[in-house]
Amino acid sequence: MSKRDDEQQEDKHSGSAVGGGLLDRRLFLKRGLQFSTVTALAAGDMTAQGEEDAAMPAPAPQAVEPWMRQPGKPFSNYGQPSKYEKNVIRWVAGNPDVPGNGVSWTPFQDLEGIITPNGLHYERHHNGVPRIVPDRHRLVIHGLVEQPLMFTIDQLKRYPLESRICFVECGGNSNASWHKHPTQTAVGYFHGLVSCSEWTGVPLSTILQEAGLKPQAKWLIMHAADAVSLSVSIPVEKAMDDAILALYQNGERVRPENGYPLRLILPGWEGITNVKWLRRIRAVTEPVMSRSETSRYTELLPNGKARQFSFIMEAKSIITSPTIGFQMDGPGLYQISGLAWSGRGRINTVEVSADGGKSWAPAELQEPVLPKCFTRFRIPWQWDGKTAVLQSRAIDETGYVQPSRAAQLKERGTNAYFKFNAIVSWEIASDGYISHVYE
Amino acid sequence: MSKRDDEQQEDKHSGSAVGGGLLDRRLFLKRGLQFSTVTALAAGDMTAQGEEDAAMPAPAPQAVEPWMRQPGKPFSNYGQPSKYEKNVIRWVAGNPDVPGNGVSWTPFQDLEGIITPNGLHYERHHNGVPRIVPDRHRLVIHGLVEQPLMFTIDQLKRYPLESRICFVECGGNSNASWHKHPTQTAVGYFHGLVSCSEWTGVPLSTILQEAGLKPQAKWLIMHAADAVSLSVSIPVEKAMDDAILALYQNGERVRPENGYPLRLILPGWEGITNVKWLRRIRAVTEPVMSRSETSRYTELLPNGKARQFSFIMEAKSIITSPTIGFQMDGPGLYQISGLAWSGRGRINTVEVSADGGKSWAPAELQEPVLPKCFTRFRIPWQWDGKTAVLQSRAIDETGYVQPSRAAQLKERGTNAYFKFNAIVSWEIASDGYISHVYE
Repeated sequence: MSKRDDEQQEDKHSGSAVGGGLLDRRLFLKRGLQFSTVTALAAGDMTAQGEEDAAMPAPAPQAVEPWMRQPGKPFSNYGQPSKYEKNVIRWVAGNPDVPGNGVSWTPFQDLEGIITPNGLHYERHHNGVPRIVPDRHRLVIHGLVEQPLMFTIDQLKRYPLESRICFVECGGNSNASWHKHPTQTAVGYFHGLVSCSEWTGVPLSTILQEAGLKPQAKWLIMHAADAVSLSVSIPVEKAMDDAILALYQNGERVRPENGYPLRLILPGWEGITNVKWLRRIRAVTEPVMSRSETSRYTELLPNGKARQFSFIMEAKSIITSPTIGFQMDGPGLYQISGLAWSGRGRINTVEVSADGGKSWAPAELQEPVLPKCFTRFRIPWQWDGKTAVLQSRAIDETGYVQPSRAAQLKERGTNAYFKFNAIVSWEIASDGYISHVYE
Repeated sequence: MSKRDDEQQEDKHSGSAVGGGLLDRRLFLKRGLQFSTVTALAAGDMTAQGEEDAAMPAPAPQAVEPWMRQPGKPFSNYGQPSKYEKNVIRWVAGNPDVPGNGVSWTPFQDLEGIITPNGLHYERHHNGVPRIVPDRHRLVIHGLVEQPLMFTIDQLKRYPLESRICFVECGGNSNASWHKHPTQTAVGYFHGLVSCSEWTGVPLSTILQEAGLKPQAKWLIMHAADAVSLSVSIPVEKAMDDAILALYQNGERVRPENGYPLRLILPGWEGITNVKWLRRIRAVTEPVMSRSETSRYTELLPNGKARQFSFIMEAKSIITSPTIGFQMDGPGLYQISGLAWSGRGRINTVEVSADGGKSWAPAELQEPVLPKCFTRFRIPWQWDGKTAVLQSRAIDETGYVQPSRAAQLKERGTNAYFKFNAIVSWEIASDGYISHVYE
């Protein structure tokens, strides 16, 4: 197939309805698309370079490097990333007055797939990471139960376990999007208060059944073992549905900054309710009305009232590449890649626009597509070198459509802080410079 | 529901066909099963202990610990496991004469779920981990192609990417199972040359199509950039099917010991073919017959002939808990948990026996069940305190049934070394001591 045929087929695939150069999402399976300025080698390049295997001459441009001439590094008991990836880090934004109060961000600009490696899971602490000695940690369930119980971690590890790959998102994620002017920073350092792991632990329902909830128990107050004694109220229905007392994260024990030795996971619910360092569950009739559910983690509406106990994180998507920091390489074929998720279930569709929302094309969703979990979407894009605005829009299995920023501001006002989930726009200028814009 | 009712129901659920105390796999969803000797608290225990929130008195046995009275540790750019998990490591078994030649094992006895954290992915190196400078690394494709090509890592990162959660297993995994006497060591340090990650990279077919394979190209010789210049032959059909040039592992860039900056992933095929530090692909008509595919990684049969190019890892399962090192706590309810996988597709069923293979009960398979991927299985077990022998048996979607050790020895002889995938047996003695046995 000649290059010319390819181009014609691209036009056919992209269809007249979609502008901006978005191509059919499966187009990259076709032959002959060139996604980068790869080096074509001439026959004369194929000269031997002194490699051991003379029958397999190396092409001249591919030198025998020093690391092929000496033994490599030894085995290790616990591996670490390459030193050349030392800039792939959580960026810390702490409160200068209270060092342990702040956040650190997952660097989505440098990551791919749906799993967040444990070292890069986002952090949100109110007073740092408690230095818990696991053998001394206890979980107590008391209050409106038939039989108050106390568990060691070793006892919990013997219970029937359940695993689930799901996201945890801070209610304050993406809050810079409420600012008057678009923040110009890497996508992860602005939307990266969300991460996705395989969590394994004891279904909370098992423990509640063992203790025996009394009929008047409608809420559970969850207490953390950190220095602010964080406490949060959870309705019993969610606890009995899919809540997990997580002991393991991506196979190994939960990391200290993620709640070691025990974290509550409420799939699809905002981060603050996924209580870390969980030590006590008290069954009660009414929510505790703690600071974290009254003055904080509530949403002030234009009419002056506040939305409270709006636990579920609505459908959202972000493009992770190309975004700020990505080096465009002139006009040509690119892949747009990003993440979508919904606290209500599976992602049904992600649509991508390259013309600021005038037209949309469906992206390819990477299998497996799991409920309340990151879904990776990708779509090829033929950039013509003119200014373009990239956007993504998630639709979940309930039919909910990720709103435009304008619609979200209209509903929630300009004083909002929590739960921004509107469409994010990235402008690619004709010189390849990428910036965050409001459309 | 009284304890007595529970016991009767257990008997009913376990059924007369299954002995040894295996219970219905979904039984743990029922109310009132007690899996550990949890502490029941008396009403008098619920005395305040000087906590800030006087409305929420702590039960007396749950002290206010020192880590609740002082600010916690600060945020971190890249997280690490708790220091209390310092024994959860890859155990290294190196060749004393060649330090970089050996293996390190994934500690399954301490892990749960299906994802292997990157720090604990098994290693198998022939001459250590090369110190590759990623900007200087090149991938070349040459030989029987229309257009030889050379790629930098940055160029490859711009290609359309694909993700896949799959296992990689060394052909030599579980080789101690061929020994005359059963090895007595932790399950991971004996069956842990297999790990499971989400790999993301460029489909190899994309690159092959761009270079244009000539019709006579039937094999691809894959060359590594390590100090032994490892080379392996791969049939073109597999390369065009589901092979990935992996750049990312569980979200972040591939770790050095797993092939940084570029690793070939051949889902379901033995580890040696998943070439790390990939630098060159040569399209040829015949396999190269390198050391790794003649004197090594072939299987000597009883008739003196050797099985060669038997790439696919057949269905296999291992119980990970309770196994050697697990502390039995007297008669009572336990959960049996383990991993199953098949190089031919999905796991269809895992059956568990508690009476040395006389009777079998189906285990619960944790969703998602993905092809060529770890599947976590679990089943509750009522131990009566008598000697028991636990076994697991995987059946994959092709109908292949994991064989008994006797059947595997009969087929492959006693001089075999590679690709042991037979049933593994664990004896629980009446005093709770666990050992590996041959049945």
